[in-house]
Amino acid sequence: MGTMGLAGRAPAQALPNDGAKIPMYGIFEITLPGPKDGNPFTDVTLTAAFSMGYRTVEVTGFYDGDGVYKIRFMPDTPGVWSYRTGSNRSELSGAEGQFEATQAATHGPVRVNNIHHFAYADGTPFFPFGTTCYAWIHQSEELQRETLATLKDSPFNKVRMCVFPKHYEFNHNEPELYPFERSAAGVNDFARPNPRFSQHLEQRIGDLAAIGVQADLILFHPYDRWGYQSMAPEQDDFYVRYVLARLSAHANIWWSMANEYDFMKSKTTADFDRLFKIVEQEDPYAHLRSIHYGSVEYDYSRPWVTHASHQSSNFSDAQEEIARLRKPVLFDEVQYEGNLDRRWGNLDGSELTYRFWRGVIQGAYVTHGETLLPSDAEMTEEGTPTLWWAHGGKLHGTSPARIGFLRKLVEETVTPGNAAHAGLEGSRGASYDNAVAYDGDGKAATILYFFDEHRPLWYEFPLPEGDYAAEAIDPIEMTITPIAGRYSGKSKIRLGPKMYQALRFKRV
Amino acid sequence: MGTMGLAGRAPAQALPNDGAKIPMYGIFEITLPGPKDGNPFTDVTLTAAFSMGYRTVEVTGFYDGDGVYKIRFMPDTPGVWSYRTGSNRSELSGAEGQFEATQAATHGPVRVNNIHHFAYADGTPFFPFGTTCYAWIHQSEELQRETLATLKDSPFNKVRMCVFPKHYEFNHNEPELYPFERSAAGVNDFARPNPRFSQHLEQRIGDLAAIGVQADLILFHPYDRWGYQSMAPEQDDFYVRYVLARLSAHANIWWSMANEYDFMKSKTTADFDRLFKIVEQEDPYAHLRSIHYGSVEYDYSRPWVTHASHQSSNFSDAQEEIARLRKPVLFDEVQYEGNLDRRWGNLDGSELTYRFWRGVIQGAYVTHGETLLPSDAEMTEEGTPTLWWAHGGKLHGTSPARIGFLRKLVEETVTPGNAAHAGLEGSRGASYDNAVAYDGDGKAATILYFFDEHRPLWYEFPLPEGDYAAEAIDPIEMTITPIAGRYSGKSKIRLGPKMYQALRFKRV
Repeated sequence: MGTMGLAGRAPAQALPNDGAKIPMYGIFEITLPGPKDGNPFTDVTLTAAFSMGYRTVEVTGFYDGDGVYKIRFMPDTPGVWSYRTGSNRSELSGAEGQFEATQAATHGPVRVNNIHHFAYADGTPFFPFGTTCYAWIHQSEELQRETLATLKDSPFNKVRMCVFPKHYEFNHNEPELYPFERSAAGVNDFARPNPRFSQHLEQRIGDLAAIGVQADLILFHPYDRWGYQSMAPEQDDFYVRYVLARLSAHANIWWSMANEYDFMKSKTTADFDRLFKIVEQEDPYAHLRSIHYGSVEYDYSRPWVTHASHQSSNFSDAQEEIARLRKPVLFDEVQYEGNLDRRWGNLDGSELTYRFWRGVIQGAYVTHGETLLPSDAEMTEEGTPTLWWAHGGKLHGTSPARIGFLRKLVEETVTPGNAAHAGLEGSRGASYDNAVAYDGDGKAATILYFFDEHRPLWYEFPLPEGDYAAEAIDPIEMTITPIAGRYSGKSKIRLGPKMYQALRFKRV
Repeated sequence: MGTMGLAGRAPAQALPNDGAKIPMYGIFEITLPGPKDGNPFTDVTLTAAFSMGYRTVEVTGFYDGDGVYKIRFMPDTPGVWSYRTGSNRSELSGAEGQFEATQAATHGPVRVNNIHHFAYADGTPFFPFGTTCYAWIHQSEELQRETLATLKDSPFNKVRMCVFPKHYEFNHNEPELYPFERSAAGVNDFARPNPRFSQHLEQRIGDLAAIGVQADLILFHPYDRWGYQSMAPEQDDFYVRYVLARLSAHANIWWSMANEYDFMKSKTTADFDRLFKIVEQEDPYAHLRSIHYGSVEYDYSRPWVTHASHQSSNFSDAQEEIARLRKPVLFDEVQYEGNLDRRWGNLDGSELTYRFWRGVIQGAYVTHGETLLPSDAEMTEEGTPTLWWAHGGKLHGTSPARIGFLRKLVEETVTPGNAAHAGLEGSRGASYDNAVAYDGDGKAATILYFFDEHRPLWYEFPLPEGDYAAEAIDPIEMTITPIAGRYSGKSKIRLGPKMYQALRFKRV
């Protein structure tokens, strides 16, 4: 990278935000004017090397329309970072500057922690209790604001959402913004992303960050009438690189390569392998990466996959899968609380709650969705009311509060000194599903039992030696009732009996 | 078979019941005095050939103790049958006589009908809705009478029961009668069955017949402290032949070779193959034959097996299994309604009802069991109250009434002219489990849908062309509510929505 191109442009330190202070895990953005001629999206290359001491992080910039180019960087270390741009166009190359990353104002991006669990970059454990609003950013602004308000007060800390608009049952509206330039006749120019669309998407990802919600961003999906599911391989690659350049600096991004990837008839698994590798190689921050399937599971053991993302309720196999993959296992689609005519969309809230418990007690994680029509809805898709699963809006079901109750129980398992190995370990040492959270000394600090549809009148719990207090937990009624006594080793305790009960032991 | 041995004994026509009239499917019994010396059980052979016209049925007799020998025969054709005995002892050989089989007073033994269903020998469809009282014949006489009274008023028409006493959790009592001679020191003589025990067993099988209940008789099981599970192969063979000789003439017998055969460490699958073949070859009436497993399924495709007898709740595979086996599939152990500390014994009554529906809607059959302790039971097996699953007694659960409700729905699918192909055919033509019963013309006469945990607000049923009336069915509340209108072809109908709902279409 030469400096010749600097001739004719202002010195680097004149950039508006040179010398700025940005909290670590925030976004430092460089804006550069540049050429508008030809196709700036494809003709112009732009990178920046951010350096601190011996470290240099190379990031890719992007064209934001109207002759404006941007480079974004998320610092992960406090201190002064200097940078220098590179480009195949002299006016964009060789710009230099520096900024100071101050102490973090947030926890940073979520990483894998303790083999099959998660933590923020600062080490704070993160337990994903996600939900699903596939096409929420493609609805009216009013509805999007309502979705954000609902999420803010919900128990959900991750949302599965699509980049592309959605064409599917109950989803026939036209988006306000298209991700690519599109003629009035509906012809896409896949070489020209629509900066207004991208800016909108970024705004929403930032809105989610502000309320502590991870954006599990779905890059491809088959529910499409606009042509996005059948772009050519080089168009897919370009699209993914553009999204990476724009969005990677957002701390709360997770990459979901696709929803129901196997239902995309114009792509093969090899296509997704290739796209995965682009993400792996070009995301400077190594955000979490997975892919969701319809019926044919992707091979989650592949090295570029950070966690499994199942459409399945096969919780019984989760422990074995965790042992095999040594990665987190998410059940990202276990059917939805709702009343649609489709099997995937008409579970009762208690049934979805049950599925959350079944998954979590195996050391896995589960994702929510809601497809509830009003009970007097017409028997048609026309005039469909707002359905959370696709449109966002409000939550009406009974499962969110119960999921929040479970999330709190899981979060309460984090004790001082155990963050590095936080999370529940599924255990088969007893007749009933149970999971253990260990303290900093590797001792069982919390043991959570879930009796699912079984309802013993009593049970002899094979506790470790120790001093445990017991509480009866009703996951449906969301109550916690202390059980008298202290327990150690084999301990016989009288229970309900009632279906869907749980019991918590905490080391005193 | 010579006649020389007749020297010295009374002519055949002097036998007390010579010339008797016995209803078809009843038991004609010949009693002969004979030798007491040596071991009559093993030293003496005894058979009789029963003939009518061109048919001859050879049956085996048995020693009943005290110098008494018996031969039993169940006629399956009305008219005059003549017989002649054979023996290796002259005083038992060559006895002749005849009796008249009159019109049947009962339906006769149960056979496979319509590939994977059942009917009595007279063609009347039989739908097994069984229950389980493993050791009921080994309890007090008072309790046995209570069991019979309970069964009489229950919805159950089959009972799984063991020949041998049971040693297991909650089952530690000593039987009043042992199946073999047994010394005070507990030494068994497996060459000498105890006729008093056998008479008692026969009495109970007859008692069941009188109330229309099939005896699904379990010949071997691993819950044993007396030595019956570890007899030598030739002892097993002798035992099975003795049981066959005594009991085969009972119309209501089904042979279950074992309960949890794979948990019997002293036997191999080949042992059970051999025992199966003895039953197949030596039961003149070809009663139904199966075997129940703990975890390793027996190969139910073997030719000597008449139906599958699962310990499993894997209902989703039942249709495929029926198509493969072309035999009835029974889920004989799907866990029990109860509250024991064991997983297999603590389902809620609604959960067991759900499992019955799941199985029946696949064209399979399901068996009940109950292990309900009083809610104030001590946390110990000592002083165990009577548990239906093992001891019999009374039923306390909520599932029997609901199972009876389902049985009635199934029995109502039999319409005039369709008995030969009675039974539900599982169907995958819709998003929800449903089953069809056909009329005599091969048209769908009844279509039963079960929505299990799914609860659509409406559904478009893919009905055949026709004229169908619809009813909403609540399997838990046991209500049937007519739905207005007549339906043909694709028919959209508004539903609950509520979990565990069903819907019945009947052709008008």
